[in-house]
Amino acid sequence: MTGERRDLVIAGSGVAGLSAAVYAARADLDPLVLEGDEPGGQLTLTTDVENYLGFPDGVGGMELIQRGKEQAEQFGAEFRHGSIETADVDGRPFELTLSTGDTVQTRALVVATGASARWVGAENEAELMGYGLSTCATCDGAFHRGDDVLVVGGGDSAMEEALFLAKFADSVTVVHRREELRASEIMADRARAHDDIEFRWNTELLALEGSQEDGVTGATLVSHPDGYPVEKYEAGDDVTRADVDVGGVFYAIGHEPNTDFLRETPVELDDDGYVRTAPTGDAAMTTETAVDGIFAAGDVMDRTYQQAVTAAGTGSMAALDAEAWLEEDAPTAATVSDPVTSEAGD
Amino acid sequence: MTGERRDLVIAGSGVAGLSAAVYAARADLDPLVLEGDEPGGQLTLTTDVENYLGFPDGVGGMELIQRGKEQAEQFGAEFRHGSIETADVDGRPFELTLSTGDTVQTRALVVATGASARWVGAENEAELMGYGLSTCATCDGAFHRGDDVLVVGGGDSAMEEALFLAKFADSVTVVHRREELRASEIMADRARAHDDIEFRWNTELLALEGSQEDGVTGATLVSHPDGYPVEKYEAGDDVTRADVDVGGVFYAIGHEPNTDFLRETPVELDDDGYVRTAPTGDAAMTTETAVDGIFAAGDVMDRTYQQAVTAAGTGSMAALDAEAWLEEDAPTAATVSDPVTSEAGD
Repeated sequence: MTGERRDLVIAGSGVAGLSAAVYAARADLDPLVLEGDEPGGQLTLTTDVENYLGFPDGVGGMELIQRGKEQAEQFGAEFRHGSIETADVDGRPFELTLSTGDTVQTRALVVATGASARWVGAENEAELMGYGLSTCATCDGAFHRGDDVLVVGGGDSAMEEALFLAKFADSVTVVHRREELRASEIMADRARAHDDIEFRWNTELLALEGSQEDGVTGATLVSHPDGYPVEKYEAGDDVTRADVDVGGVFYAIGHEPNTDFLRETPVELDDDGYVRTAPTGDAAMTTETAVDGIFAAGDVMDRTYQQAVTAAGTGSMAALDAEAWLEEDAPTAATVSDPVTSEAGD
Repeated sequence: MTGERRDLVIAGSGVAGLSAAVYAARADLDPLVLEGDEPGGQLTLTTDVENYLGFPDGVGGMELIQRGKEQAEQFGAEFRHGSIETADVDGRPFELTLSTGDTVQTRALVVATGASARWVGAENEAELMGYGLSTCATCDGAFHRGDDVLVVGGGDSAMEEALFLAKFADSVTVVHRREELRASEIMADRARAHDDIEFRWNTELLALEGSQEDGVTGATLVSHPDGYPVEKYEAGDDVTRADVDVGGVFYAIGHEPNTDFLRETPVELDDDGYVRTAPTGDAAMTTETAVDGIFAAGDVMDRTYQQAVTAAGTGSMAALDAEAWLEEDAPTAATVSDPVTSEAGD
């Protein structure tokens, strides 16, 4: 048996992973934090966070992440580049193969790998994400009082975002690539009934205009009577093109939980790939997964709320759960210099 | 029908209530926050908070509360003195009678009333609470440099308090009514191994001596070889009595959720009075209670973690749940100036 040996690995360095790291490091668990493919997670895509309790003047998304990392490091958390490629969780300790090629063995694992918002693929979106382009109406809607905004998507979350944005924006236009919504009838009816919400059917977003200084100022839309216009545009078919002035664009085409490395494991995922916690059906708050010693926190286990402050909360829960489990299940602590196999079984 | 009418009342102004207020106010729900009997909640009893993500240098408990309140007020949350005396939740809207005598009607309610530290029931404790008697070692330990102090309790938090106090006090004596600790092995071992921490088994606190001028100066303890000596003392059995000179006494015998006003309602409580969320047995994260339109957040629904950051997380969840419920259940918004009965029924 070679490779590094840990009591606790935290996969992910977004808000959930950082909060888990603060708690775990403060409890002397000497956690290793794998930063993942997007260090800092989704919050690094947000400019201003107004709703994270404790910052009356708001805090930058990147700033909050940096402060959290500093806090975790002060208690001794170790950060490392890389993500988990494969996880062998059938034996003890778990064996993780990282994207760096390294192998790490660990007695406990906190999965805080997040969920990434799907992007449309429109021109300029990388530049404008966080500058008028957003994947979270709850987070950023309040910045668009009096604006005309677009919502891209046709599901329940697109309807929710449109209804939420209609409280602030002058007008909300839902841009949907088909002429039929995927949303539930009740949500669709509610959005349709709203005076300030319009729909552009069979339409997609081709490009965004604006700058990081001025934010989003406009968008180029393409339409085709048979739907999926970008596909047709790229195939050289005729499409109708429209340039619109907008002050904000919201993507609501879903999130993708980062759980590929768990697909071959007994960790239970739901149909969309989110980690199921409380797999026993126990309704108490917990971050336990279907595998003893593996805990989940943040967006990867929370498809409902996906807020910075909820991720911080479940992150701390996961660390506390992991700490309790490590103490109970296997009193003999592993250390980096101690290659003795844990006697814990289950 | 008289009295004020609201869409959302948030009961409690600790971390959970504040986080709910930030989210609800930001979503234009115009929430009324009832500050409760202990405005700011348990965190106001804590000096330094090191593990709330976002503050690498720590933050004062009171400071975090003040920052959160300022944040909620900036979005328009309204704060008011008072707590809920009785809640009639059988009809719609709910009708709350406050400790101030006022009545408030509300379509939705977030219960964030927290959990308060339990008291022993010893003679003179009401007079001396805050004058050498404390329920929070973290807050008040530093006032007892060079003192001999007592910690009452046998669980993890009692061990934590004893270990913390041992930094300041000359000696710490843990007074426990049985001869076996409820604390986890590791915490118990740590306390037992400490040179300045002693244990008095099968012992309870009967009375405190001292005054508000001089603070706590002594305590009367009773012991019985079979444990639970106060019970036996009150039944007229022989107990061993000891008067000890001490400069401080710390209670660490748990917390009591503030849910008396819910006892006569269909909101489900567990055996200890904590609000049950996810009462349908659905294991998904939720703050829903057994009554539609009533949500719970913070320590009052979380007996496991009871951290500032978890309370902030569940607070935001409750506001989001309340917002979704208000939209779905009864699209016609009530306003303060609109006494029309909501048409929502269920």
